[in-house]
Amino acid sequence: MTISSLVVLLDLIGTFVFAVSGAQAAKESKLDIFGITMIAFITACGGGIIRDLCLDVTPPVGISYWPYLALTIFATILVIGFFSHIEKLKFPVLFFDAIGLSIFSVAGAQKSLLLGFNYEVAILLGMISAIGGGILRDIILKQIPAVLRKEIYGSAALVGAALFSIGHYFGLDSGLGTIIGVLTCFLIRYLSMKKKWDLPTF
Amino acid sequence: MTISSLVVLLDLIGTFVFAVSGAQAAKESKLDIFGITMIAFITACGGGIIRDLCLDVTPPVGISYWPYLALTIFATILVIGFFSHIEKLKFPVLFFDAIGLSIFSVAGAQKSLLLGFNYEVAILLGMISAIGGGILRDIILKQIPAVLRKEIYGSAALVGAALFSIGHYFGLDSGLGTIIGVLTCFLIRYLSMKKKWDLPTF
Amino acid sequence: MTISSLVVLLDLIGTFVFAVSGAQAAKESKLDIFGITMIAFITACGGGIIRDLCLDVTPPVGISYWPYLALTIFATILVIGFFSHIEKLKFPVLFFDAIGLSIFSVAGAQKSLLLGFNYEVAILLGMISAIGGGILRDIILKQIPAVLRKEIYGSAALVGAALFSIGHYFGLDSGLGTIIGVLTCFLIRYLSMKKKWDLPTF
Repeated sequence: MTISSLVVLLDLIGTFVFAVSGAQAAKESKLDIFGITMIAFITACGGGIIRDLCLDVTPPVGISYWPYLALTIFATILVIGFFSHIEKLKFPVLFFDAIGLSIFSVAGAQKSLLLGFNYEVAILLGMISAIGGGILRDIILKQIPAVLRKEIYGSAALVGAALFSIGHYFGLDSGLGTIIGVLTCFLIRYLSMKKKWDLPTF
Repeated sequence: MTISSLVVLLDLIGTFVFAVSGAQAAKESKLDIFGITMIAFITACGGGIIRDLCLDVTPPVGISYWPYLALTIFATILVIGFFSHIEKLKFPVLFFDAIGLSIFSVAGAQKSLLLGFNYEVAILLGMISAIGGGILRDIILKQIPAVLRKEIYGSAALVGAALFSIGHYFGLDSGLGTIIGVLTCFLIRYLSMKKKWDLPTF
Repeated sequence: MTISSLVVLLDLIGTFVFAVSGAQAAKESKLDIFGITMIAFITACGGGIIRDLCLDVTPPVGISYWPYLALTIFATILVIGFFSHIEKLKFPVLFFDAIGLSIFSVAGAQKSLLLGFNYEVAILLGMISAIGGGILRDIILKQIPAVLRKEIYGSAALVGAALFSIGHYFGLDSGLGTIIGVLTCFLIRYLSMKKKWDLPTF
């Protein structure tokens, strides 16, 4: 399996896991089946849609590439039908959520650089790809976005996108840059969950 | 009157009715006259603006075609000046809101297909044209969007956009497809109001 | 100093002051340092990003021109490190906020007209440049946007953008139009603060 097909696979897994987290939150907020599906979709694809609008990639792949929608619907059905089982899978969900975060941030930075934009755009949009969907989910469900309040989540995405961009600047091979960015973001996120790290508030 | 001039007329009526619903909600939330006008405009034009940004139609027609803004201001004045009378008109407002929903969903799908995008884009953006403004209104007024919680509203828009798209796929005449999509969406919405149908929650 | 370099300077000051107001609000909402920086950035650059997306200027300058991000980070550090001192500076902050409002509204209208769009687009996007960031800040922090509820703020921005556009229509020199638009917007905002004017609610 090549790096690039691995990235595609992990991107789809990340989409699925983000959709699960969106559907769970929506179900807990007592939305109906239409609302649960919408929130699952927005959580999974919202960050990428904001990224694509900023990059002038229209229509955004989130609404034009069917596997994203299909995975969202599949995740929604699972959450509705097997909610109690998924609850027990809390660890795997957080584990794959960290993978999704890592993949989305690096892939977002990569897409921006491939289109010829500068490093600031790549780092910011890489991060937004990874955390934008969750922010939209929290806004719609009337919660102050968790990513802005606690834990180490958005900053891990920032590091992933930044490392890939720095590697690109120094001419590092794109596959190697992807591995370094994804692994570092994942490790930061994973360790911070294990150790219950938080960033400072004031 | 041709189908296409009928669609233009119904689009303007839909805009007006959506603006009325936005202005009413904003007035109840004790916004000032600037805020009421803004919410009326966002409710009426927000869905179409999101659709146009995703289709790369810039500037979005919602902010560049003056009749939309004029109708919004007119609706705001009516709601401010004749609030108690409009309250009594609850049935007509819901009736025309259902018409707006039907027209916006089919017109959004049609616009996407005319620009050469795929059926998924057409169905999703048709639906977003119809419900996006109301979702933005509810978010700004700090309510969990009603369309995600209860009644049959977004799913009716989805059916309208999907029927038009299916007709297009099978080479159906566009005027006929419009009639079928609009009527079906309207009937689903109207019946669900009459019968107080809700989608399941879990 | 020419008018245009003055506008650039005031634009940067406006960005800085908007970032300060965002960081202050985020700190009061107990966000962590990542969240404070994000809210500062969104408050300072969010309105311009919406404007640029509507004008098809991609990537939006807010995420591609580094001084905006640098000023945001600088403002965040100041607010975190010297919060009590900035609190005492309430008057200067409101004073420069009024300058930011004035500059952003006129510069937004000017950018729209330079790109060849119509006067409605220029006026609406001028206003959105000035108030969009604050609206996004309030939405994310779960408050009904202050600009829609009280004081004279959004309508001052509307007047600034409209005056510049009217001047442009009548062939007025762009530097003179800028001065008239900025000064009028600033005076309306400043006087309304002094006199505690509000727009009517109903």
